[in-house]
Amino acid sequence: MDLPTLRDPLFATYAIAACLMILKAVAMSWLTVVRMMQEKGGFRSPEDLRRTPLNPDPSPEQLAPNDRVERIRRIHLNDLENIPFFLVAGFLYILTAPPLWLAQTLLYGYVVSRLLHFAAYLTARTHDMRATLWTVGSLILVFITGRTLFVAAGYP
Amino acid sequence: MDLPTLRDPLFATYAIAACLMILKAVAMSWLTVVRMMQEKGGFRSPEDLRRTPLNPDPSPEQLAPNDRVERIRRIHLNDLENIPFFLVAGFLYILTAPPLWLAQTLLYGYVVSRLLHFAAYLTARTHDMRATLWTVGSLILVFITGRTLFVAAGYP
Amino acid sequence: MDLPTLRDPLFATYAIAACLMILKAVAMSWLTVVRMMQEKGGFRSPEDLRRTPLNPDPSPEQLAPNDRVERIRRIHLNDLENIPFFLVAGFLYILTAPPLWLAQTLLYGYVVSRLLHFAAYLTARTHDMRATLWTVGSLILVFITGRTLFVAAGYP
Repeated sequence: MDLPTLRDPLFATYAIAACLMILKAVAMSWLTVVRMMQEKGGFRSPEDLRRTPLNPDPSPEQLAPNDRVERIRRIHLNDLENIPFFLVAGFLYILTAPPLWLAQTLLYGYVVSRLLHFAAYLTARTHDMRATLWTVGSLILVFITGRTLFVAAGYP
Repeated sequence: MDLPTLRDPLFATYAIAACLMILKAVAMSWLTVVRMMQEKGGFRSPEDLRRTPLNPDPSPEQLAPNDRVERIRRIHLNDLENIPFFLVAGFLYILTAPPLWLAQTLLYGYVVSRLLHFAAYLTARTHDMRATLWTVGSLILVFITGRTLFVAAGYP
Repeated sequence: MDLPTLRDPLFATYAIAACLMILKAVAMSWLTVVRMMQEKGGFRSPEDLRRTPLNPDPSPEQLAPNDRVERIRRIHLNDLENIPFFLVAGFLYILTAPPLWLAQTLLYGYVVSRLLHFAAYLTARTHDMRATLWTVGSLILVFITGRTLFVAAGYP
């Protein structure tokens, strides 16, 4: 069986960065749940207004948008716009056999930029700070994808 | 060429689960189309109000949100928040060489949990049932990602 | 180390198609930013109304939906509903060892269908043209996923 091995330092770098980003994105789902429970609102489906053990005291305003819940949803959507592409681009980039230090800098740098972006978004920092952190991650993503495209197209 | 082989039972388990989940997600796009045609509404773009062979009798209310269409869009968004991460996490998890029975239980269990979640959401079951089914899948995803992270970081 | 090699023509075909699609999706983020700057609006977070170097003259209507920005967001969402699944399905399909000409036709055909879909959506062509282009890509995606499922399940 010819599967890439997690013991290879380059592939392990990718796998660690990928797992951290997956857990980060999944955590947004859980954080949405936590905030919906705290706020007892921010729901989206009409059936969520039925009386259940998790919602013993339903009321129509539970379907209204809730600022604290919508903030997590926006962060989550930003993850969906970025992380799935990083997960594939990072894998393909590793196949170009970059130096280990460079792969670590780029992939772990991406992870750090996304975690800082999350912190800035969660605490409602200025648009400029959030945009700067997003830009760092996006430029890393564009670089590793462009470099892979270059190698796959036959350039050295 | 060193590509993983679909004949390996462990990798075939992943490939089958992955293909089923991809087809499921793509089916949500088609189901949205079907419902938009049935309802002759739930459109989103202003140009969709032009008279065309597929929309011979346009009217402005076709751009209003339509409950039956919006339900599929919510299910679809839930897929986007979950399935792309499962597709990568499942692949990496297989590289940790888990026992075949365990990989089958986790990966096929994930597929089943998502199909039941779809059925519960489509038929507007209570939030509690939908949340329970989502939780099963999400915990599987967290487990396989956490286990992969553990192995990639050098633990046995 | 047993990693797939980008020098293999079949795998290079996948890698090129994947990188082009990733860059396309990431470009939607940048295009959203460009249009928000041009329109000085279409923002989504309350903190984006603070006075900053990038937004020296804030006003509440900057949070209202802006048609030119929302169009890019719809295109972007359509990418999120399609491209991540193509990225994984294309990789698995390559493992079924299809003829090179067929893989090139399907994977590059998918890329072309998505670029044309983007052009049709951006310029607000009729729903029918946009739907036709989307359908071509979606059928390619269903075909390569179905074919992979078939092979992974043990059929020749």
